[in-house]
Amino acid sequence: MTLEKYFKEKKVIVDKALDSYLPEAKAYPSVIHQAMRYAVLNGGKRFRPILAIAATEALGGTIKDVLPAACALELIHSYSLIHDDLPCMDNDMFRRGKPTVHKKFGEAIAVLAGDALLTQAFHVLASMKNSKLIQRLVPEIAHAVGSHGMIGGQVVDKQISLVKRPQLPEISYVNISKTGQLIRVSCLTGAIAAGADKKTEKTISDYGECLGFSYQIVDDIIDSDGFVRIMSRHEAQDEARVLTERAKKSVKILGSKANRLGEIADFVLNREG
Amino acid sequence: MTLEKYFKEKKVIVDKALDSYLPEAKAYPSVIHQAMRYAVLNGGKRFRPILAIAATEALGGTIKDVLPAACALELIHSYSLIHDDLPCMDNDMFRRGKPTVHKKFGEAIAVLAGDALLTQAFHVLASMKNSKLIQRLVPEIAHAVGSHGMIGGQVVDKQISLVKRPQLPEISYVNISKTGQLIRVSCLTGAIAAGADKKTEKTISDYGECLGFSYQIVDDIIDSDGFVRIMSRHEAQDEARVLTERAKKSVKILGSKANRLGEIADFVLNREG
Repeated sequence: MTLEKYFKEKKVIVDKALDSYLPEAKAYPSVIHQAMRYAVLNGGKRFRPILAIAATEALGGTIKDVLPAACALELIHSYSLIHDDLPCMDNDMFRRGKPTVHKKFGEAIAVLAGDALLTQAFHVLASMKNSKLIQRLVPEIAHAVGSHGMIGGQVVDKQISLVKRPQLPEISYVNISKTGQLIRVSCLTGAIAAGADKKTEKTISDYGECLGFSYQIVDDIIDSDGFVRIMSRHEAQDEARVLTERAKKSVKILGSKANRLGEIADFVLNREG
Repeated sequence: MTLEKYFKEKKVIVDKALDSYLPEAKAYPSVIHQAMRYAVLNGGKRFRPILAIAATEALGGTIKDVLPAACALELIHSYSLIHDDLPCMDNDMFRRGKPTVHKKFGEAIAVLAGDALLTQAFHVLASMKNSKLIQRLVPEIAHAVGSHGMIGGQVVDKQISLVKRPQLPEISYVNISKTGQLIRVSCLTGAIAAGADKKTEKTISDYGECLGFSYQIVDDIIDSDGFVRIMSRHEAQDEARVLTERAKKSVKILGSKANRLGEIADFVLNREG
């Protein structure tokens, strides 16, 4: 199966599951549920859940093993975008060509819809049958998206947006933390859900770290931001290429069943949006 | 032991545990960690964690059984106050006589510190040793503080703040959801941590529901808001008294070991701040 077809197939499954994990739009008080659904069911690529699924499948697990956790990762991604777009953050008016949540529903509802999606993410995670899995996944995911991870990255991103000449350590921190940590933990979630041993978990986490870093550098090249503020596009592309090779190398040890993960690393490097 | 002494003793233990569950102020990026600590370690009464502890102890459990979950409830309470105080919400400048988080650290950091505390709450919850307990508590708490609970209450509270004559159903919904649900689930958390049977869980949850509702009515009387916008202070006081009696009656079945819970219900009714 081509990677394009793989993405398409998984996206259908993830979209359907996300719909089932979100409260109905008419449930009282409906405006918050409308806003939650507007933010999540918006034609997103579902890259993070599909990554978790691909990691699980590469290690012999099935999509069923990981689907709630994969959807929780997407709910977290969605909440982070709502809060990132707020007037006090990036003050973005449009996302994927549609008004941002605060533009459509007002700022208060946008803050609360983000809060509700983050809360719902942990609710969905804890709906998994295996309690040991919940006990492993909640701390891993909370750490990756908390003040030492994704949120920390947003803090530093906000700080460097206000300075003229940001420094490499801060930009690297933002790239590793803001985008990279959620991508890394998406891969790790797949490995944990597949019941991988500690060594394999580490392999997948290393892969995810390189992948997340290269994902953000490619974003920077597309948006002319971040890395591209302190180095040339050419240098940034080289950096992303090195990370892609490192990502692919780290999963080589898993053999041919991990081919899909290698393809995904190349896809991340070569995407144009 | 008097209730006052009981509160004092438990507060010392809760404050120490909260301190240990929060990232150090100097951890990078330090501004977010300073903001998180500023919001939580602020001399709060710790009513919700102490309620969870009192419920556990009433059912034969120990403080150790419930302490992480009790602290998670306080982290959630703290995050909700930060976001509630934001300019787009209540636009409050002071809390307990000190500048609110957004006033002191800026709006972006306030949004992110709230997000980080909510995330940390689930991290702390999942640090409990018993995985079955985590599997029970995460969904109960997430439901109580999500879009069908606390957040839903905040949505409707915001809506009625904009109308001249709010109606009783909306005001009741706000009181039950915005404050009441977290208080109810604090009691329930104590029961679950103590390993109570389903019937006892229900008893404690009913107690918590009446307690939470009366807590908010007393708040309304103190702040001349909410219930006091549509009925006299006298009528509101009567309502709170009825709820207090119902709360006390519901835990009578547990015998003398639940005396403390009765005392707490009276305390909530008679407090002046």
